[in-house]
Amino acid sequence: MTHQPRILEVRTKILKKNDELARDLRERFQRAGVLVVNLVSSPGTGKTAFLQRTLTELLSACLRPAAIVGDLETDNDARRLATSGAPVRQIMTHGCCHLEAEMIEQHLDDWDLSKLDLLFIENVGNLVCPASWDLGESLRVVLLSVTEGEDKPLKYPGLFNTADLAVITKCDLAEACEFDRAKARDNIHAVRPGLTILETSAKRGDGMDQWYRLLHGELAHRSGGKST
Amino acid sequence: MTHQPRILEVRTKILKKNDELARDLRERFQRAGVLVVNLVSSPGTGKTAFLQRTLTELLSACLRPAAIVGDLETDNDARRLATSGAPVRQIMTHGCCHLEAEMIEQHLDDWDLSKLDLLFIENVGNLVCPASWDLGESLRVVLLSVTEGEDKPLKYPGLFNTADLAVITKCDLAEACEFDRAKARDNIHAVRPGLTILETSAKRGDGMDQWYRLLHGELAHRSGGKST
Repeated sequence: MTHQPRILEVRTKILKKNDELARDLRERFQRAGVLVVNLVSSPGTGKTAFLQRTLTELLSACLRPAAIVGDLETDNDARRLATSGAPVRQIMTHGCCHLEAEMIEQHLDDWDLSKLDLLFIENVGNLVCPASWDLGESLRVVLLSVTEGEDKPLKYPGLFNTADLAVITKCDLAEACEFDRAKARDNIHAVRPGLTILETSAKRGDGMDQWYRLLHGELAHRSGGKST
Repeated sequence: MTHQPRILEVRTKILKKNDELARDLRERFQRAGVLVVNLVSSPGTGKTAFLQRTLTELLSACLRPAAIVGDLETDNDARRLATSGAPVRQIMTHGCCHLEAEMIEQHLDDWDLSKLDLLFIENVGNLVCPASWDLGESLRVVLLSVTEGEDKPLKYPGLFNTADLAVITKCDLAEACEFDRAKARDNIHAVRPGLTILETSAKRGDGMDQWYRLLHGELAHRSGGKST
């Protein structure tokens, strides 16, 4: 493409600035002892249902989770998530196809991070663009639903390459979709060998305990807990 | 965002260049009498299955369809589509989240467009970014699967706003997904009043006849047919 050198130059500068801000955010989150989890996927993979169940479970385990959710338009997801009882903030990107570190920073105002144990960031539904934008998270989780097809990791390798964990969602629909779990796992591992894969259904609860154990394990690795 | 003015300036120039090239392409397609259809949706909505069935049907009706398919990586979709017998070309975007007019132009080399009746462009799976990139198409079709949830038109209005037709896919899974078709239709029409909506299953064949009739109608509106 003839315009590539120019756009690449500008993109590189903007991404560099985002990376610097994300590094500052990461240090801030670590100082506050909050585990930050960035959830990325296509639209309709079920991030909100997965997160809603997660928030409810963590609250019942006397942890202090919060969430920031990004969408182009509407605050539907924030309202759904807030029914869990956890503090939730919506970022409306008005056309921007991903969240950026600066957007996250602007939505932390007047939140006392030291009073949180976990902060979930539900990214804009997009299996391409969020890959390049570090938000200062500790854990990037890519979700893939059984309805999307087993080939998506091969066709959209960027997000799978940069993820710390893959979660297969909507496993209650696996049979109806003729989902080939072995093939999906092989494709994820072809792109990212050794990546941990959880198979879940937020609707039925399958595999959710494994996810909660993983979060508890991550929290246990943090610096000796905080006073509530 | 502090970097917005700079990126917007560059984006505006690039989009303007794309629009100019798309206008040239549109004139070229019209001179050749080929109906160009741009299929846009999330990853996993079923564009390839929908298009594969469409190509097979059109060939059996003695029409001359072809397809160009965009993916970040792999030529899996082109290979699937080519089993129909129609000529198919794959564009690998290597990280770019949408197709651009220049990519289309580069992949038309040595194709005699006057020997085609329809050219389908299967865009990169992305419900955000392709909205801004005119490819010179006559018809932009946005697909939404029953597995993605009824709220997507409200959350990702850009593609629905710029589409000429909406196709709901995977209706065979509607019951398993507890899909609320009235709500989905209302949400599409809230974003784009009066938009024609087809409800389909490429697997079972539901609603496909209506789609073929629509294509035949569009072809009939073209300039008096061409000699084969």
